[in-house]
Amino acid sequence: MASSIRPRLRISALSKCRPRHISLPQLPARQQRALSNRRPPNPHDAPKGVWAPKTRLAFGVVFIGAMVYSMATGTPTKLEAPSIAERDKLAKHENGITENSPMRLRMERFIKEQQKQIVKELEEIDGKKFQIDTWTRESGGGGISSVLQDGNVFEKAGVNISVVYGTLPRPAIEKMRVNHKAIDPDVTSLDFFATGLSMVLHPHNPMAPTVHLNYRYFETENPDGTVNAWWFGGGTDLTPCYLFDEDAIHFHKTIKDACDKHDKSYYPRFKKWCDKYFYNKHRNECRGVGGIFFDDLDEHEKGQEDAFSFIQTALKAFLPSYIPIITKRKDMPFTEQEKLWQQLRRGRYVEFNLVHDRGTSFGLNTPNARVESILMSLPLTAGWRYMHEPEKGSREQRLVDVLREPREWV
Amino acid sequence: MASSIRPRLRISALSKCRPRHISLPQLPARQQRALSNRRPPNPHDAPKGVWAPKTRLAFGVVFIGAMVYSMATGTPTKLEAPSIAERDKLAKHENGITENSPMRLRMERFIKEQQKQIVKELEEIDGKKFQIDTWTRESGGGGISSVLQDGNVFEKAGVNISVVYGTLPRPAIEKMRVNHKAIDPDVTSLDFFATGLSMVLHPHNPMAPTVHLNYRYFETENPDGTVNAWWFGGGTDLTPCYLFDEDAIHFHKTIKDACDKHDKSYYPRFKKWCDKYFYNKHRNECRGVGGIFFDDLDEHEKGQEDAFSFIQTALKAFLPSYIPIITKRKDMPFTEQEKLWQQLRRGRYVEFNLVHDRGTSFGLNTPNARVESILMSLPLTAGWRYMHEPEKGSREQRLVDVLREPREWV
Repeated sequence: MASSIRPRLRISALSKCRPRHISLPQLPARQQRALSNRRPPNPHDAPKGVWAPKTRLAFGVVFIGAMVYSMATGTPTKLEAPSIAERDKLAKHENGITENSPMRLRMERFIKEQQKQIVKELEEIDGKKFQIDTWTRESGGGGISSVLQDGNVFEKAGVNISVVYGTLPRPAIEKMRVNHKAIDPDVTSLDFFATGLSMVLHPHNPMAPTVHLNYRYFETENPDGTVNAWWFGGGTDLTPCYLFDEDAIHFHKTIKDACDKHDKSYYPRFKKWCDKYFYNKHRNECRGVGGIFFDDLDEHEKGQEDAFSFIQTALKAFLPSYIPIITKRKDMPFTEQEKLWQQLRRGRYVEFNLVHDRGTSFGLNTPNARVESILMSLPLTAGWRYMHEPEKGSREQRLVDVLREPREWV
Repeated sequence: MASSIRPRLRISALSKCRPRHISLPQLPARQQRALSNRRPPNPHDAPKGVWAPKTRLAFGVVFIGAMVYSMATGTPTKLEAPSIAERDKLAKHENGITENSPMRLRMERFIKEQQKQIVKELEEIDGKKFQIDTWTRESGGGGISSVLQDGNVFEKAGVNISVVYGTLPRPAIEKMRVNHKAIDPDVTSLDFFATGLSMVLHPHNPMAPTVHLNYRYFETENPDGTVNAWWFGGGTDLTPCYLFDEDAIHFHKTIKDACDKHDKSYYPRFKKWCDKYFYNKHRNECRGVGGIFFDDLDEHEKGQEDAFSFIQTALKAFLPSYIPIITKRKDMPFTEQEKLWQQLRRGRYVEFNLVHDRGTSFGLNTPNARVESILMSLPLTAGWRYMHEPEKGSREQRLVDVLREPREWV
């Protein structure tokens, strides 16, 4: 099974690299020679300075798409100059990852540890093992997909990480220019690094909510190979079919506590952002009872250490935020009617992901995308019923009411 | 039930109409007076002359969106000048519909007759009755939705007609301008008429194919109320989960025979067009085994009478194209595994409709759209399974092979 999903790799020989203005004493002599035939830096190669938050949001969205694209095609987004990937590989090999390593490596190590721990804990709850698919790219980076399907507790569960060294592909740059006119239309390359952990868990039991989580770190690089800009993004949100107030309260409270340890303004701001983003606007309802979402946690907010520290706290808060809920709900009795309602709610989940989610849409419209990676978030089963209306005063109606007017849970 | 889906209507009093340069002897004096305070015609109000086919295709797509929008919101797309609607209403009232009536009325009458006949025949096959919801709009036009859910044969079946007198809404004009730069960006109104019959049938039995059909007529109007351009569009396509060659051959042969009666070039051209349009490009596969699709059947192709005559033949060919297939397949035995495969194929149907279908996407991104009308085409149940691959040499694999390389069936 693992071999069937291993992307076809293309070897990008360093001798074919586009030369660049960098001084890399740690590179072997052969590689240093390969870089000697260099061209002068082009001021249009990458946007200078720091982008305004709004621009960065749009950029972040494109980056998610680019990540999806990179993960999906399994071919390197950059065939020419994997210099940062090379440097990171050497650094890991020679010194290991320490507190002094670049943030790229520290974030990668952190999410890998977290993935292991989350998968371990979910396996204990489910009783079945995840299928683990590891894939690497010769140009640097790769990913680990962990999927559990037809489990005892989970109908479909995916906990994936990816590490991408790439150049923003042309369609992504064009998309980015829609919101960022200052970018030279002739720019054909914008180097970036992106790493993140993505998770969607769909339980069988309609009383147990679906949960989504994603935390990610981005960098863009200057032509000389130094970091141009960095930021963290992500969030987590809960999607119940039957609403237990205590679950929503527990989920939000756990997240809020994590946020409050770092900045009292985070939770209220990121909670609102989440309600706004995970919104099925054609249905006039939120996808679920929310959580947090943010996309530009950078030096305007915090120093990089503080930001990373917050991301660590937030991701570590996942297990305590969800495990008590799934434990309580996974074996609750339910009726066939309640299972049918779950199917309709799953249909809404599909609608959000296919119609509104910007990363998914970008990925699917990218030629040769690896669709299985992109659509792993879709449930095993979903349904659509013409003109279905919950009964007045029913639990189903109450959920819809809450989705129409997001609540403050803590 | 009917009342719950009746759109909220707004009465657009003619006294509030935007005045226009038209001479309408059949209008009552009160209405004539209301039109006296008119402004001179603006040469930018509508594109002049006849558009090239490519432009018209893009325009047709936008129009489908506009139809969806109009049907969906249940509010008139044009609050200001329903003059053509008024004229048509009067004409129907005074003279009935004859061979000399405008094509608008003749096409409307024809699809209404066809809807009745198709619903009657499908009810005979299923044994259950359709739910018929009729809705009108005070500004003119309306629709009849006929839906059968949880039938004996059909899991979900919809046979809908709609009649729209409207003005292309602003977002649609903007979308249209992407492919039609000549349109004045300041144009805020482009009057049109659109009517069509849309049908999607999803049977329970995985051996019985899903079928889709849509035939429609469009007009744009000059500021003086005369017809600026007209065209027909539409098509029909078959989506099996298990491929019976004889079914695909029968379906295509019936359609080809209908086409050949009018123009020997139609079937080969429209068959290719269909394979191209109903293509899930992110999956590298067609939605099904195709049929025909076209979107610019106008005076460049044929006179209006000939074009209408073809549309009649094509729509009348639906029952003979599908009834023998559903009759043969509806009671075939099937396994649980085959039902699961059907669910995955239904997932692909959902993907096409939500990700690629241009009318659906436009409708869903239109604020306050009536989503139930737009998403009636989605199946009652669908599924997604990570990394599912049919066994080599299996019937499932054979279907996928054919979807990847469309065949000539006749």
